[in-house]
Amino acid sequence: MKEIGIGLLGAGTVGRGLIEILETEGERIASRTGVRPVLRRVADRSFQKKPVLSAYAPTASIDEVIDDPSVELVVELMGGLDPAGTAILKALRAGKSVVTANKALIAARSAEIFEAIAEGRKKNPATTIGFEAAVGGALPLVRNMRLIWSAGGMQRMVGILNGTCNFIITRMQDDGMEYAEALKLAQQKGFAEADPSFDVSGKDAAQKLAILSMLAFDVSVRDSDIVVEGIESFHRVDHELARKMGRVIRLLAIARRVDDRLLLRVHPAMIPANHLLADVRDEFNALFIEERYAGPSLIVGRGAGALPTAAAVLSDLVAIGSGSANRWVGDLQPLKSLEDARYRFYFRFRTVDRPGVLARIAGVLAEHDISIATMHQEEGREPVDVVIVTHEASESAVRSAVSKIDGGEIILAPTVVIRMEDNPDASL
Amino acid sequence: MKEIGIGLLGAGTVGRGLIEILETEGERIASRTGVRPVLRRVADRSFQKKPVLSAYAPTASIDEVIDDPSVELVVELMGGLDPAGTAILKALRAGKSVVTANKALIAARSAEIFEAIAEGRKKNPATTIGFEAAVGGALPLVRNMRLIWSAGGMQRMVGILNGTCNFIITRMQDDGMEYAEALKLAQQKGFAEADPSFDVSGKDAAQKLAILSMLAFDVSVRDSDIVVEGIESFHRVDHELARKMGRVIRLLAIARRVDDRLLLRVHPAMIPANHLLADVRDEFNALFIEERYAGPSLIVGRGAGALPTAAAVLSDLVAIGSGSANRWVGDLQPLKSLEDARYRFYFRFRTVDRPGVLARIAGVLAEHDISIATMHQEEGREPVDVVIVTHEASESAVRSAVSKIDGGEIILAPTVVIRMEDNPDASL
Ligand SMILES: NC(=O)c1ccc[n+]([C@@H]2O[C@H](COP(=O)([O-])OP(=O)(O)OC[C@H]3O[C@@H](n4cnc5c(N)ncnc54)[C@H](OP(=O)(O)O)[C@@H]3O)[C@@H](O)[C@H]2O)c1
Ligand SMILES: NC(=O)c1ccc[n+]([C@@H]2O[C@H](COP(=O)([O-])OP(=O)(O)OC[C@H]3O[C@@H](n4cnc5c(N)ncnc54)[C@H](OP(=O)(O)O)[C@@H]3O)[C@@H](O)[C@H]2O)c1
Repeated sequence: MKEIGIGLLGAGTVGRGLIEILETEGERIASRTGVRPVLRRVADRSFQKKPVLSAYAPTASIDEVIDDPSVELVVELMGGLDPAGTAILKALRAGKSVVTANKALIAARSAEIFEAIAEGRKKNPATTIGFEAAVGGALPLVRNMRLIWSAGGMQRMVGILNGTCNFIITRMQDDGMEYAEALKLAQQKGFAEADPSFDVSGKDAAQKLAILSMLAFDVSVRDSDIVVEGIESFHRVDHELARKMGRVIRLLAIARRVDDRLLLRVHPAMIPANHLLADVRDEFNALFIEERYAGPSLIVGRGAGALPTAAAVLSDLVAIGSGSANRWVGDLQPLKSLEDARYRFYFRFRTVDRPGVLARIAGVLAEHDISIATMHQEEGREPVDVVIVTHEASESAVRSAVSKIDGGEIILAPTVVIRMEDNPDASL
Repeated sequence: MKEIGIGLLGAGTVGRGLIEILETEGERIASRTGVRPVLRRVADRSFQKKPVLSAYAPTASIDEVIDDPSVELVVELMGGLDPAGTAILKALRAGKSVVTANKALIAARSAEIFEAIAEGRKKNPATTIGFEAAVGGALPLVRNMRLIWSAGGMQRMVGILNGTCNFIITRMQDDGMEYAEALKLAQQKGFAEADPSFDVSGKDAAQKLAILSMLAFDVSVRDSDIVVEGIESFHRVDHELARKMGRVIRLLAIARRVDDRLLLRVHPAMIPANHLLADVRDEFNALFIEERYAGPSLIVGRGAGALPTAAAVLSDLVAIGSGSANRWVGDLQPLKSLEDARYRFYFRFRTVDRPGVLARIAGVLAEHDISIATMHQEEGREPVDVVIVTHEASESAVRSAVSKIDGGEIILAPTVVIRMEDNPDASL
């Protein structure tokens, strides 16, 4: 087991999410990954107001945490350009690895950060930075850019990268709300800030697109390289008109190779209603990519929130802590498997056309405690299809009922049995 | 730059895909990841028939490749339980890391493999195995199980894990084919083997589910722990009946926590037609998960094929080769950005109700070389909405046309302009 001493800067929404995961799942993380992240120190400007921190020698001094010899890795979750930037550069130069969720900083100061890493590696060759949480929360985008899509064949990325905008747009689309009303609802639900302008202007999505483009295309992107339009300008009626054209509106962040140049855009766009991205609703984020070798891929998930973002931070801790000694399998337990499960079932009985057939089928189902939700018989000549959807019933009861029914002479072909899966949730 | 010497066992579909990527993208991979995988030796039982291998000192002897001191990492792409199993165990015990796409072997012999790794680490502490390609081809599932979903809070996994079955099912659903006809088409397209029984019986999906369950829930799963039903039993008419209920049929691989037990199933299921998984068509694979911290997530992509599978193999090479010194950013190039792009546009002009308004708008568009595909005017009192969809036009032309139109006194509110994105492809 490898312990790794963590110093946390900033115990706000995400920082406290991380503390919650480490406190609840510390043992399991260690057993699963071979790495035990141990929180040693926390710096927060208002640590006195945060009782959960008392176990971690809290201080208001950022330097105290970075300089603490028991801190091997610094997690920066204060946000903003400074003092976060100064802190990250200092830790890296000292040969301490850094994990951060700070997209603004990565987008603005990546060159300096990578220089600081080079300097830190003179002291500690393993010095590195992880910023999985900076783009798309719990969606594994940063890591995949460098690992799964490592051959560099990225052709196109189309993302829904801002949950606030997507929430507002899909409420306008599905509930016929106007922009102001949907924004208010987003604020009530905690999906939008009191001042939402950074999100609704498209600037947040543009920062994320800049980071993804750096990773995918090996280019450095400034804010001004991306054409950005927000979502404030269109109205409910535009959703209705889009629907008439078989389309829906989404705020898309797009990067596309065109010959040897790159098109970088964030803007509302109408996409076909039957496209996978059209089913990405509410606060969810998504990235669709096309890569020369891996092909087209889509990743959908929670782009923000305390725990999803903290899960991404944790993924960097584990990756950095484990190095190449990846522990693909933890301590295995014997399986406790569920032998009999309950479902709603669809049956299609292919039967003779004779009085009493339905009564016979219904009788056997009743004997086995299988209750019928809907029954339907197609008109026509023999063979006749009788279609039944049941209420929840157990697999074992269904197995024995169907084998009894199929054994009789009223059935002309093996009965088709299909489970109904209402989960996963249609709205994801 | 870190070179890593590779020995390849088996140069078939995936093996030659890997050679193609390494030959084409070697430099780019090195610059992006800091790791240069160098293919040193190849073993293949019919290497004489494969001229591409001549550059890599080909041999029929597996041992010769494993024992070669220039080979630091062994890539096993022969398939089957043996000699692949013997080869992998030997390499690991010798302290050489292994990368494989062999799901049958991982599902059947994981315990032995992990013991061999423990033994190998006595010689070389970095000894490890990568099998990202064994489940879901280019979908980053294995890695995410241990990295993004590392806290162990997996609640549920619902996957479409067999491309052959999904191709057959969606052809039956969309083109009204019967099973035999859809299977034949799958065989013609190379999506199904001459003997398709391993796929269509659900057994292939069950093996993948066993591996994912091991990674997600830390349990060891045998084939017999999973209830498996294939896709041979239902007919076109069941798709029609499903459609009437607002559902579609998919072969799902399901793992779900129920109290302290696990439900593991592979079977056809009816899912709501508006669910994201219902849009996963043809040979694509997908995994929907629900994890306590990360939340619900979906990953969709190519589950098989030479290049997608080879891309996953490459991801393991890079991960193992780079260790913790992840190179998140390669050698950055200056951005060549595309300043002006062409789209089809949607305009909504809010106008006064007066003769000549349409002529004025159409005139300005024509002046700017913007040609109209459809024009539509809502009936009603002032203000009147004029909706126009254009053929492809340049952003700069649109910007100046709209500013000219909005400058006139016929316009009552700023014109709404939305780009039409026909890509990404609706079928994914
Ligand atoms: N929240 C999300 O869903 C999400 C998602 C993705 C990425 N992120 C990123 O994660 C980072 C943290 O976000 P958050 O939502 O957790 O922010 P937050 O709730 O505002 O937390 C920031 C914490 O840092 C403390 N702090 C700020 N400046 C400090 C300073 N100079 N010295 C010491 N402590 C300081 C704050 O103290 P006070 O309590 O006194 O303000 C607060 O406890 C940001 O970079 C953000 O962009 C967040
Ligand atoms: N193809 C896919 O899309 C895909 C997707 C996911 C995972 N995989 C996995 O990837 C692995 C390779 O699949 P594949 O499609 O590339 O198979 P393949 O085309 O059959 O290639 C296997 C290669 O290994 C050679 N070989 C077999 N046994 C050997 C032995 N005993 N000694 C030396 N060489 C031997 C074969 O030679 P011959 O030419 O003489 O047969 C052939 O060149 C399998 O584990 C498979 O399950 C494949």
